[in-house]
Amino acid sequence: MFEARLLKSGQLKKILEAIKELLKEATFDCSDSGIQLQAMDDAHVSLVSMCLKSTGFDKFRCDRNLSMGINLESMVKIMKCCSNDDIMTIKAQDNADTLTIMFETSNQEKMSDYEMKLMNLDQEHLGIPETNYSCIIKMPSTEFARICRDLSQFGESVIIACTKDGVKFSTSGDIGSANVKLSQNTSIDKEEEGVTIEMQQAVCLTFACRYLNLFCKAAPLSPQVILSMSGDVPLVVEYQIEELGYIRYYLAPKIEEDD
Amino acid sequence: MFEARLLKSGQLKKILEAIKELLKEATFDCSDSGIQLQAMDDAHVSLVSMCLKSTGFDKFRCDRNLSMGINLESMVKIMKCCSNDDIMTIKAQDNADTLTIMFETSNQEKMSDYEMKLMNLDQEHLGIPETNYSCIIKMPSTEFARICRDLSQFGESVIIACTKDGVKFSTSGDIGSANVKLSQNTSIDKEEEGVTIEMQQAVCLTFACRYLNLFCKAAPLSPQVILSMSGDVPLVVEYQIEELGYIRYYLAPKIEEDD
Amino acid sequence: MFEARLLKSGQLKKILEAIKELLKEATFDCSDSGIQLQAMDDAHVSLVSMCLKSTGFDKFRCDRNLSMGINLESMVKIMKCCSNDDIMTIKAQDNADTLTIMFETSNQEKMSDYEMKLMNLDQEHLGIPETNYSCIIKMPSTEFARICRDLSQFGESVIIACTKDGVKFSTSGDIGSANVKLSQNTSIDKEEEGVTIEMQQAVCLTFACRYLNLFCKAAPLSPQVILSMSGDVPLVVEYQIEELGYIRYYLAPKIEEDD
Repeated sequence: MFEARLLKSGQLKKILEAIKELLKEATFDCSDSGIQLQAMDDAHVSLVSMCLKSTGFDKFRCDRNLSMGINLESMVKIMKCCSNDDIMTIKAQDNADTLTIMFETSNQEKMSDYEMKLMNLDQEHLGIPETNYSCIIKMPSTEFARICRDLSQFGESVIIACTKDGVKFSTSGDIGSANVKLSQNTSIDKEEEGVTIEMQQAVCLTFACRYLNLFCKAAPLSPQVILSMSGDVPLVVEYQIEELGYIRYYLAPKIEEDD
Repeated sequence: MFEARLLKSGQLKKILEAIKELLKEATFDCSDSGIQLQAMDDAHVSLVSMCLKSTGFDKFRCDRNLSMGINLESMVKIMKCCSNDDIMTIKAQDNADTLTIMFETSNQEKMSDYEMKLMNLDQEHLGIPETNYSCIIKMPSTEFARICRDLSQFGESVIIACTKDGVKFSTSGDIGSANVKLSQNTSIDKEEEGVTIEMQQAVCLTFACRYLNLFCKAAPLSPQVILSMSGDVPLVVEYQIEELGYIRYYLAPKIEEDD
Repeated sequence: MFEARLLKSGQLKKILEAIKELLKEATFDCSDSGIQLQAMDDAHVSLVSMCLKSTGFDKFRCDRNLSMGINLESMVKIMKCCSNDDIMTIKAQDNADTLTIMFETSNQEKMSDYEMKLMNLDQEHLGIPETNYSCIIKMPSTEFARICRDLSQFGESVIIACTKDGVKFSTSGDIGSANVKLSQNTSIDKEEEGVTIEMQQAVCLTFACRYLNLFCKAAPLSPQVILSMSGDVPLVVEYQIEELGYIRYYLAPKIEEDD
């Protein structure tokens, strides 16, 4: 028996919005420590890794480890039927071929339940090596989304260059070239609007705009995004989900031929 | 001579929005008691019945009974030219082939008039028998619209089951199944947010989602919707229009083969 | 060296929105008095004339007269990357083939620069004769936009008839006919909501709705629009840009065959 209760179903709604354009279907691995998802996107370019800790749920029970193959498009449809403040419960029997999703309003006057068919999906568990990153940048997630969207108007790739003073995003294309520079800045009132940089070594890497834009769909989950970079290893774009866990995206840098 | 003056033209705007997707054209029957419209939708599946009482208008004069064939798409275009708070006057001569629609702002600094060609439409007057309904459900019109929209993602039909305690809306399809239950609830602050059930006998009937969704276009007319049901007779979905009258939709239940 | 600094980049954003549907590309003529643009629209029907005075800029330097051929679509893309309150600087060398556009947030923590390729465009300077107009109408720019949009639902042309008492906009088409009358009105609280008419002689002229609608894209630049009309000369539709200058559109009246 698996059962997990979440006080704000809006959180899971946002999580699904953050992965549904990368993954059509995915396996949710449930154990008594929580729910995990790890998968290459459908084009096998980037990696999505999500972790929701059991302690972050209002109630969590998982008698036996369970791997649930889920059609994300179907689950998104179900999640659209809840209000963000509805209480949500997910339930499955140990060998079930269906998952039950229940929503209740806080006054319990409206109760909905949805039964969704599960799928058998192949799974490949990918080891993600521990890495000491040369640069770790924390910045407002909406600012990162804005920059990625703006620059993708001009070119297909964005160069992220991080130094002690700040981070520069650049691109160029038919129209011309574009540079956006953010200074490190920690002295402002709201911590979540700050830009902080932890740097061992300056880094300058190139990434595909298209994927950065897809990762930015997670911005509603967290006011800040964390970018971790080292030469020649994948960039990590991380959004922490308050009290619940995180979602991380991995994307290998492009090899620039004209370097 | 026919002349009717309405202090808030927004009301007629909403009425047209509520019927324009069911009817391309319709006959407005004007008499000294008011304006009536009754018509099968273009696919001859559901019936629309609208009644606007003469007493609900600021001014109403109808010397001779008048049947005006109206192209609703054209009238919607004209209604888009008014602001909701404009004062509206509709005028026609006794044997006119045009209808004049006038809008004035409350300070009378902007006056508009539109002359619309009338049509000759065949009319079939359908008797609607008086019925004692087994269940009469009153609920917030936005909640009903939400449930119809949500469930139509999963299946083409929705089963409405009403008992003394509450009403359950269900559907199923390729993805799985869905149930939404509302409890009777009259103790809340705002009357218009309540769910009330008058029941002689429990009822469980199946309807086409598509039509329920079309009826829900009338939700802006009224905070509450009234569903009247009895076994084997058409469902009535009624929206009362403050001081002016009502709009009612009739839809026969589906015969479920797998019952 | 050319350099112009504007405290609110939102102003230039709105200017570009106001001309981009009429002109694909245009020459910006820079001199020490400011920036001017004058061009027939791509279909050679209307004329756009823009003037931004050097004194309206926070900083303005133009060592030598400069004609910059600009692809407006590209410049719109760049302007989309700024926030309305960003400080903007435009820069070019004397014989440059690129234009640099820079944005900075007021706290200078985000700095962006875009380098855009310039084009060689043919230029024809058109003399606009000074005219004494028979009627000059000032009215709220949103009201003018609303009327043009409304009437263009019914016909392709709109007749503007101006008398001492007010101005009437009329059209007719398949559906029927439409008239909107505005009364002169200067006694209201907010000057920008007034309608004022300076009239030497009553005027009644016909114009193409399509172009009036395109001119109305400038409405965000100014709360009031000024319409200047005389028999047989082009209508002028003028939007004044606070402290900076103006944008004017010229459109010849239609010759009505059935007059």
